[in-house]
Amino acid sequence: MPNYSTPLRDLRFVYRELLDPGVMQGLPGCEEVTPDLVMAILEEAGRFCEERLQPLNRSGDEEGCSFDGGRVSTPTGFREAYRQFIEAGWTTLYGSPEYGGQGLPKFINMMLEEIISSANFSFGLYPGLTNGACSAIERYADAALKQRFLPNMIAGKWSGAMCLTEPHCGTDLGMVRTRAEPQADGSYLLSGSKMFITAGEHDLTENIIHLVLARTPDAPRGTQGISLFLVPKIKVNDDQTLSGANGVSCGSIEEKMGIHASSTCVINFDNALGWLVGELYQGMEAMFVMMNTERLAVGIQGLGIGEAAYQGAVAYARERVQGRAFDASRQTEGEADPILVHPDVRRMLLTMRAYTEGNRALAGWVARELDRSLRLEDPRARRDAADFVALMTPVVKAFMTDCGFEAANIGMQVYGGHGYIREHGMEQFVRDARIAQIYEGTNGIQALDLVGRKLPAHAGRYLRQFFHPVQYYLQEKANDVSMQSFQPPLAKAFGRLQRATAWLAQRGMQNPEEAGGAASEYLRLFALVALGYLWMRMAEIGIRERDGAEALFYRAKVATASFYFERILPQSGALFAAVMAGSKCMMSFEDDAF
Amino acid sequence: MPNYSTPLRDLRFVYRELLDPGVMQGLPGCEEVTPDLVMAILEEAGRFCEERLQPLNRSGDEEGCSFDGGRVSTPTGFREAYRQFIEAGWTTLYGSPEYGGQGLPKFINMMLEEIISSANFSFGLYPGLTNGACSAIERYADAALKQRFLPNMIAGKWSGAMCLTEPHCGTDLGMVRTRAEPQADGSYLLSGSKMFITAGEHDLTENIIHLVLARTPDAPRGTQGISLFLVPKIKVNDDQTLSGANGVSCGSIEEKMGIHASSTCVINFDNALGWLVGELYQGMEAMFVMMNTERLAVGIQGLGIGEAAYQGAVAYARERVQGRAFDASRQTEGEADPILVHPDVRRMLLTMRAYTEGNRALAGWVARELDRSLRLEDPRARRDAADFVALMTPVVKAFMTDCGFEAANIGMQVYGGHGYIREHGMEQFVRDARIAQIYEGTNGIQALDLVGRKLPAHAGRYLRQFFHPVQYYLQEKANDVSMQSFQPPLAKAFGRLQRATAWLAQRGMQNPEEAGGAASEYLRLFALVALGYLWMRMAEIGIRERDGAEALFYRAKVATASFYFERILPQSGALFAAVMAGSKCMMSFEDDAF
Repeated sequence: MPNYSTPLRDLRFVYRELLDPGVMQGLPGCEEVTPDLVMAILEEAGRFCEERLQPLNRSGDEEGCSFDGGRVSTPTGFREAYRQFIEAGWTTLYGSPEYGGQGLPKFINMMLEEIISSANFSFGLYPGLTNGACSAIERYADAALKQRFLPNMIAGKWSGAMCLTEPHCGTDLGMVRTRAEPQADGSYLLSGSKMFITAGEHDLTENIIHLVLARTPDAPRGTQGISLFLVPKIKVNDDQTLSGANGVSCGSIEEKMGIHASSTCVINFDNALGWLVGELYQGMEAMFVMMNTERLAVGIQGLGIGEAAYQGAVAYARERVQGRAFDASRQTEGEADPILVHPDVRRMLLTMRAYTEGNRALAGWVARELDRSLRLEDPRARRDAADFVALMTPVVKAFMTDCGFEAANIGMQVYGGHGYIREHGMEQFVRDARIAQIYEGTNGIQALDLVGRKLPAHAGRYLRQFFHPVQYYLQEKANDVSMQSFQPPLAKAFGRLQRATAWLAQRGMQNPEEAGGAASEYLRLFALVALGYLWMRMAEIGIRERDGAEALFYRAKVATASFYFERILPQSGALFAAVMAGSKCMMSFEDDAF
Repeated sequence: MPNYSTPLRDLRFVYRELLDPGVMQGLPGCEEVTPDLVMAILEEAGRFCEERLQPLNRSGDEEGCSFDGGRVSTPTGFREAYRQFIEAGWTTLYGSPEYGGQGLPKFINMMLEEIISSANFSFGLYPGLTNGACSAIERYADAALKQRFLPNMIAGKWSGAMCLTEPHCGTDLGMVRTRAEPQADGSYLLSGSKMFITAGEHDLTENIIHLVLARTPDAPRGTQGISLFLVPKIKVNDDQTLSGANGVSCGSIEEKMGIHASSTCVINFDNALGWLVGELYQGMEAMFVMMNTERLAVGIQGLGIGEAAYQGAVAYARERVQGRAFDASRQTEGEADPILVHPDVRRMLLTMRAYTEGNRALAGWVARELDRSLRLEDPRARRDAADFVALMTPVVKAFMTDCGFEAANIGMQVYGGHGYIREHGMEQFVRDARIAQIYEGTNGIQALDLVGRKLPAHAGRYLRQFFHPVQYYLQEKANDVSMQSFQPPLAKAFGRLQRATAWLAQRGMQNPEEAGGAASEYLRLFALVALGYLWMRMAEIGIRERDGAEALFYRAKVATASFYFERILPQSGALFAAVMAGSKCMMSFEDDAF
């Protein structure tokens, strides 16, 4: 198994150098979140993940979860690791202090999620789903429900799960059939079957709190009739003690390509007691709060696995000797040279690095705006920040998981045949990373969210939160000679994005099929420009610092930025051409001819 | 499991319409290979693969090969299927009639390989490796060895394996340590350990004939001292009867990401009796004959799995209802519409289709030239054909396996969460397809072969066999109005390829690191142009025939060609930019900074 080491230096770079840590500390309630505190938390988190979670990653994959008579057992070591995880307080970071949380900014939690995903992707899903459930409960549930459920969820004693998908509907939740019968006391009895429920049943916690999309008897058809319910696996008394079994059972777990240590369950509700979360028929809205938290987290899973694959590939490229360097000055005394000398191997490593470090910067940017959207006092500034997060959520989810899968595959390729066998753990990264492109809305759905909802929302208002900073920065640097290998190509790619956006705004309005046909390529074009902007900013810092005390680190930043600009950003041209070609060739293809 | 159906119509299109079947029939020894005979063989092969091999694909993956005390068992049903396979004569198609083969052109065998790879990728590796071994024996072994081994190998009673890799060397075979001690009677005793030996041990045949790279005691260092030996698992008498065990044993089999039904073995040689194949120290040359046969076969594996994934995805897109069509005229009466109506789903399907049908045409073209190179009487024409095959082999291997993996992943994506679970078989395609990018020389090695060996060979002579037909065709169609949406973009992409080639020829000569750094992107650029050329030719046929009896088929050809030109071929611009950026940003990256 590749030996993962937390990229503290790069996390610090993003948090303290690329983004302004003062912005974070200036937020209400964050006065004590000093840069030193943040780094101390991350250091401790890194140590925990390296020492406790990483050693269980491969064994967890080999052993997998098991199902026996409705009970799900996690792999050996997971219970103990989870106990240590909650004892160390890692589930409490950003929960509200009112319910036992530390009230830290989400920014810190998102960095923690990267580290967990690198060390043990499957493990991270258990606390990860709880986070999403807590977000929805905190925002929409009434005071009594919050008081009854949140403290133990934030403490990690109870976990959460999101029950959306049914066998006949995933993307199209308007078809949900699970029923919720109202009772005289205001509670509901839920019946129905949900599938693909991550962490829906397991042995890590004494209770599992399901958030369930369901339909009341008189509900309107489609998504307008969907409501969200809280349904505990074990009933809970008002004093938060456990009462007795609820009508919730696990019917089976799925055999999957990867994330074997994460349980993916069929959950059956049979007159299970539940409570409405939020307003009747407003379930989709509440679900999206939970879902958006998860979508950012899933994007970060892609980042985490990309980092782990990168580290594994670099280690192998240093130690595996094979073939001779073209350049005699790189040749060693041995029978062959480390494969790190070969240009094509360096190309692979730098591709992974350019994606991973670029995506870390993107995640940091979005995380900072998320905290600003939740904490700023000025309503207009809050709204601006929220607009940015809404815009970027599908980009983070889709692009960062695509990059994670790509990086995992490149990492495996660096190992050659040794990557395809299980022993080295590289093929596990590929299998685990693959789910992130699918769950929480496939990446195609993310692209449709971007072009169909986020671009047109409020006449393009969201978009300004991204376009304006990029535009200002390009103008600011237009005559900066030190930026001359970055500014013009970014300006060119940004111009393509602007034109593609204008085209979509015009054509997509008239004919949604045009937007649908362009969506995936448009999202990638968008993401490449976002990374280009961030890489240019990072190069600027690198150029400024490259003769200082940490010269090697900063020179590598500049070099990776150059690689990104020379080798990856040019893809914007092909994506632009694909968008502008329109969807006619797809839509006119005759159904019978497929 | 998706229900695979042999694409006979498209195989016929490639063979009878795109390529001239008269060329094949005009070759010496092929006078009786009529188009009807070819199609009858393919029909029968398709039936066999659909009925006998496909049903074992998923069960073979689940059960896998097992290892017990040196014995390897293939999954349930494989022995019986293999027996039927050889009884039906499928291993004998292109072997020499002198040794019991049917002497058919390799073209037919390559189409058979596509069908087998679609139906059961793992199964195909057993006869596939035998093919490669037979090629080398037929070309390099002396008459006695041929007589003793080929008849039973061609009949499929004995299988073949290629023993190249050792734990410390795969790509760099100059480091091979396996020893061959010469004996007084001209035979050798081999000792050493080989790994990653596909079909190195199994229970399908009574004997396994290993072709082993090894080093004699006085051999020069490096690849110049490598020789090729034939080493049977069971010794064989002159009359082809089995004698007794040889010093060949299987130490273990690998746990892999996929191709679980194919055994991947550690093979130990302990004073095992063997014979030299070809000249002493000429092992690499003989090995490359075998390897090139395999490289084409591996490219075709990518094609086969892409076709299977495409068919699975189309079936699901027709039956899965989810969401509403944007266009009211496509809406059904049900609660939702089949996902085939969604532009992004069609984009995914057409991407798979454009790669798969394009690659089928490419495989057909290369296969035809392979037969011409082996059978034409005019030495210059033979050489030209051989040049073309040599040039295209790394392109076929790398690009077609990359497309196979991409198609498998797209197919899985169409299924959403249902693709990630094992039940539907889509994730198996991804796991199986992944090996093809790695074995028989990683795709990075293929790219280096193209730029480092094939381009410079004989001052660019190989290249003319590809550039000239493309150039002539572009000139011929320059003023053809029916081709106006194809000719200019292909001319543009071809221009990029020409410039990139000239740049590589100049810079790569001076500094091999420039060639190495550009290789992967150059290979893909090359392949996109090759597919562009073939898609334009296919579009031309489609346009000519689209009002005839099979209008739907030909209209689909034209539409898929349009999709390829609008959506995929523009990638040539980004690849060109990456090549021309040079390798400086990679080579100047400091080793310690990785």
